[in-house]
Amino acid sequence: MISKNHMKPLILVTNDDGMFAPGIKALVEVAAEFGEVVVVAPDSPQSGQGHAITLKDPLRLNKVDVFDGIEAYECSGTPADCVKLAKGVVLKERKIDLCVSGINHGGNASINILYSGTMSAAMEAAIDDINSIGFSLLDFSFEADFEPAKHFVRILMKDVLDNGIPECRLLNVNIPAVPLDKIKGIKACRQSEGNWTESFIESKDPRGQKYYWMTGDFLKEENATDTDMWALDNHYVSVVPSMHDLTKHSSVNHLKHLEEKS
Amino acid sequence: MISKNHMKPLILVTNDDGMFAPGIKALVEVAAEFGEVVVVAPDSPQSGQGHAITLKDPLRLNKVDVFDGIEAYECSGTPADCVKLAKGVVLKERKIDLCVSGINHGGNASINILYSGTMSAAMEAAIDDINSIGFSLLDFSFEADFEPAKHFVRILMKDVLDNGIPECRLLNVNIPAVPLDKIKGIKACRQSEGNWTESFIESKDPRGQKYYWMTGDFLKEENATDTDMWALDNHYVSVVPSMHDLTKHSSVNHLKHLEEKS
Repeated sequence: MISKNHMKPLILVTNDDGMFAPGIKALVEVAAEFGEVVVVAPDSPQSGQGHAITLKDPLRLNKVDVFDGIEAYECSGTPADCVKLAKGVVLKERKIDLCVSGINHGGNASINILYSGTMSAAMEAAIDDINSIGFSLLDFSFEADFEPAKHFVRILMKDVLDNGIPECRLLNVNIPAVPLDKIKGIKACRQSEGNWTESFIESKDPRGQKYYWMTGDFLKEENATDTDMWALDNHYVSVVPSMHDLTKHSSVNHLKHLEEKS
Repeated sequence: MISKNHMKPLILVTNDDGMFAPGIKALVEVAAEFGEVVVVAPDSPQSGQGHAITLKDPLRLNKVDVFDGIEAYECSGTPADCVKLAKGVVLKERKIDLCVSGINHGGNASINILYSGTMSAAMEAAIDDINSIGFSLLDFSFEADFEPAKHFVRILMKDVLDNGIPECRLLNVNIPAVPLDKIKGIKACRQSEGNWTESFIESKDPRGQKYYWMTGDFLKEENATDTDMWALDNHYVSVVPSMHDLTKHSSVNHLKHLEEKS
């Protein structure tokens, strides 16, 4: 007989801010309401790691006791490494029903999905047909209030566990940093066009050697009302179904003339 | 009067294998046939870095004399950092006409575009509306023969300089590791479904501590004839128009029911 515990969905929790960020604690708390939770997260902050994986070095994986009664492992690698280790080592013999990543300290809307360790970790699960959600709160501070975010994490986690994600495996969810009663609701939308203006602070280190430190401002490139940036600016939670097929399909046929060249 | 030199297109060359890889030398040689070349490349190999950027640390940028008569800089960061520094510092006042990345030692077809520093560098330029091409040769060895690859680099670089890329800014080009007379031509195609099976070698370091080292086999998930994997298996050069909009557009409307929840 299968024990009741084994009927609960198995939920993998990860992030890119590291095991001790308040955001992952909030996510673990909500996930534990729905299923059996296993955490595999980086042992140090990994913001901006994108979809980096560790090929040249060995990875360390240590069981830690961080969340009451929750199986948790810290990993020396990137967020994508964490999910690969979860799939290939920690939960090798088991079926992961849902992967949730975050709650990130800082937004990952628009082009930021590319640089985001949070979203790459979720995508790494989605590639293997595991329903996945990356959650980000538009507040970088360690003291951010995650209570409004937890409300929407709960709604979306339940919906994906109940219904899956139509035609897709991955949601990019961003939550505005305003009190719960100021959030107008959820918007299903598309990734907004936009980019960072390249900007570097140039200075010299204590040994007189020049260095550059990346900074920059985000530049919105459109004002359409069906985008994640619009939703967030207007105090909605943005939900963008996302994928790992980067083909610009409409362009393939326009390149057929290349096949005449050799 | 504008000197003739200024009429030549400005071509930014980068890669993820580092400044001293034979692949970038081959790419610089072809690029120099078409325009004024500036190289900004990592000072060490950066394979698997995906779209990682360096936020927590300063970046170093040093002018180096590696390629005869070519302005070149090595950068301490990731491939995406290199392109950001090229756009924001080295070529700040100038218009980059084309960015080429590679020639990578090893393939970047199918899902590998996500993990690839080569492709993320090219994408970093494409995000800013610069036509970009990432080139990869399906041969990991340092002694790989880049002559067949150079032939197709020349064809594709000329075509993009002359015609641009319709509806798109980025091409993912992979070249089979066979002699030139065995390559059947170019195929415009889409990114194939496929993934790596997670696999880790588990061992102990000299201090008795357990480590995991990532390995794995690539698993093709489809046999359609319009994909990059099919083209390469059949000795064609694959050309996939690629983009940074990760929205699964057909799925957005299926998620409208979420807007009723709050």
